[in-house]
Amino acid sequence: MSEFLELLPVEDAQLIFKNSLKVKVKEEEILTQNAVGRITTDSIAAPHPLPSFTRSSVDGYALKASDAFGASDALPAYLKLIGEISMGVKPDFSLTLAQCCLIHTGGMLPAGADAVIMLENTQISRPGEIEVYRAVAFGENVIQEGEDVKTSEIVVQEGTRLRPAEIGGLIALGIVRVKVACKPRVAVISSGDEIVSPESKIHSGKIRDTNSYSLSALVEEAGGIAVRYGIVPDDFDVLYQVASQAIAECDLVVITAGSSASARDFTSQVINKLGQPGVLVHGVNIKPGKPTILGICQGKAVVGLPGNPVSALIIARQFLVPVVNLLIGLREDYFQPFIYARLTLNLSSQAGREDWIPVYVEERKSELIAEPVFGKSNLIFTLARSNGLICIPADTTGFNAGEIVKVYTF
Amino acid sequence: MSEFLELLPVEDAQLIFKNSLKVKVKEEEILTQNAVGRITTDSIAAPHPLPSFTRSSVDGYALKASDAFGASDALPAYLKLIGEISMGVKPDFSLTLAQCCLIHTGGMLPAGADAVIMLENTQISRPGEIEVYRAVAFGENVIQEGEDVKTSEIVVQEGTRLRPAEIGGLIALGIVRVKVACKPRVAVISSGDEIVSPESKIHSGKIRDTNSYSLSALVEEAGGIAVRYGIVPDDFDVLYQVASQAIAECDLVVITAGSSASARDFTSQVINKLGQPGVLVHGVNIKPGKPTILGICQGKAVVGLPGNPVSALIIARQFLVPVVNLLIGLREDYFQPFIYARLTLNLSSQAGREDWIPVYVEERKSELIAEPVFGKSNLIFTLARSNGLICIPADTTGFNAGEIVKVYTF
Repeated sequence: MSEFLELLPVEDAQLIFKNSLKVKVKEEEILTQNAVGRITTDSIAAPHPLPSFTRSSVDGYALKASDAFGASDALPAYLKLIGEISMGVKPDFSLTLAQCCLIHTGGMLPAGADAVIMLENTQISRPGEIEVYRAVAFGENVIQEGEDVKTSEIVVQEGTRLRPAEIGGLIALGIVRVKVACKPRVAVISSGDEIVSPESKIHSGKIRDTNSYSLSALVEEAGGIAVRYGIVPDDFDVLYQVASQAIAECDLVVITAGSSASARDFTSQVINKLGQPGVLVHGVNIKPGKPTILGICQGKAVVGLPGNPVSALIIARQFLVPVVNLLIGLREDYFQPFIYARLTLNLSSQAGREDWIPVYVEERKSELIAEPVFGKSNLIFTLARSNGLICIPADTTGFNAGEIVKVYTF
Repeated sequence: MSEFLELLPVEDAQLIFKNSLKVKVKEEEILTQNAVGRITTDSIAAPHPLPSFTRSSVDGYALKASDAFGASDALPAYLKLIGEISMGVKPDFSLTLAQCCLIHTGGMLPAGADAVIMLENTQISRPGEIEVYRAVAFGENVIQEGEDVKTSEIVVQEGTRLRPAEIGGLIALGIVRVKVACKPRVAVISSGDEIVSPESKIHSGKIRDTNSYSLSALVEEAGGIAVRYGIVPDDFDVLYQVASQAIAECDLVVITAGSSASARDFTSQVINKLGQPGVLVHGVNIKPGKPTILGICQGKAVVGLPGNPVSALIIARQFLVPVVNLLIGLREDYFQPFIYARLTLNLSSQAGREDWIPVYVEERKSELIAEPVFGKSNLIFTLARSNGLICIPADTTGFNAGEIVKVYTF
């Protein structure tokens, strides 16, 4: 068998792969209202200040703060009430000495006003006059023009995943279209003589094509479009033909190899034939996922994953999802979802090898607890009982019960 | 002004609302391959065991463990090699005493075999015979039929959000269609004389309709379908007409009120006219979000949110998203995304009131740090600079710098 002559450390494998991969992010312009979850390809600057006018943050009276200087219950200030600011309208009057006007939350301050006194600190003393029982500071209960954002300020950086707050903010600025990265097309190929379609009755020796569907789901969760190329038998020519079509039509190709060693070898041979430089990494010192293949052909990444459904899913998070992230233009410092939790059991691992262990995290007594979910690595429903993964790095031989460990949640 | 005669504590408000709301989850049957992120409405049982046959987890030789009892480098066991198991095929032979056969990862064990010895612990001594240098235990390197799942075992509970692992597991069992909750239709109505459409040029006194879009994005993130009913002026009759249509067509209605107190009153009057019991809660002791209105009309929830875009988004996570979660059939014990992090600053709050503070969480020196993001509550891009919220409960008056606090991430 030609495989695994050398198992590369995970970091080396990732570095070789990343340094060789020149990803070109494709962009499209879409409606901002449809852009939640998408990644910006340009930084976006504010076309005008936000708020675009100075406004009240409470219901009250707009006034000049100096006119209520020293006001108290014992010694109220008296102001002339000269009108009311209608919502959505620019006031057509301005305040002069000892004048005020009724204003609602969000109303525009008239010229001459620099603060708002809340209703509850006032009383109408007689028609056209109010008593003010409290002093107000300059700018109190007022949101200044440009207080959130100044004109030309960058409001959304390139490579930002748009959340509801960004969508709202862009709309507030009248930015109704945004440039975002296209969703990359990810080809998913499942190979192996033992693999049959999901609709097939189960026969001894055969297993249904789990990987095409679990990996497609993972790709879609990550923001890609999964394109399934069906099930390919352990046949070099057929696999090469399907992979050639896939690489022509998609931005990234993932092949889950048949389980046998010869089937796994087909995958690396096919990747080498698809284009230069071909296979860069064949075999990684990681568990599960040792037979992982990383290649680049025609400028596109081709990832060969183990046929074992659980290994494929776990390892795809290490080597496939990062490529999807690059293709959708995520910034490298993107905050990956992880938590810290207390481990319930000792976990040992082989020195030199990186181990990934499924865990179930839950809160007990205001603390997050990570309980390892054991089971042989082929058991998909055992994996489904977990909600996170912990990594035992290659330079340690395990963790002790009670240690705080980092858990990547899913 | 009729509002805020009584501010209810958050827990009371949630309880009153929840106890009055009888949610009917609608279900639909869809292809499993399209079901990632959807919530099951039935528990799903395994139609057959998984794996459906006893198989090898390594490349090696299938044998009877007792035939290699005590084998070592010094004293190997000698076994007759009688064939090879092809992938995907049920063996048409069985092993008898001191026999073995070549088997690949995933291959089906022949009758008479109960373990697999890895290739690297063997050597071909002469054609048709291997030497075994190591003893194997009964069942070693073998995955037993049903080891993951037994027939009739519940593999996915009702109310489970389907992730890639569940999708793969269901496909492995040949379950190609699943019953999931329909995506609820959520009506989003924005009201206020000061509100203009996103495409409008900005005029003094007017603001663009941020809430319809940020709340729609939040609803879609939560798994609902947002249906926008446009911008309604501060006019009772128009608001009632639009809300009537919305409640007839959707499963849940959210209205963001105009900012003025009279506009906020329209919302509660409209909810009362829409049907019994109408408004259940008007005013909650929470910051931001005091003017929140919770109502039920025609058996459907109607939520009135503050017009302030930041308050609306923060408070929607407390009162709107939970209703969406009920409508999509999530189990109540669903694990909400939160983390624990160390607070960088003192935060004080008014006793009796629940405060929500945006924070930015990042990792520093293997620890999660939560830095409060300050800014007046109307500033949408200030909110966008945060990635989590912390809650100061009503029964405390704040947190100290250095305390570990719970952060709800987004």
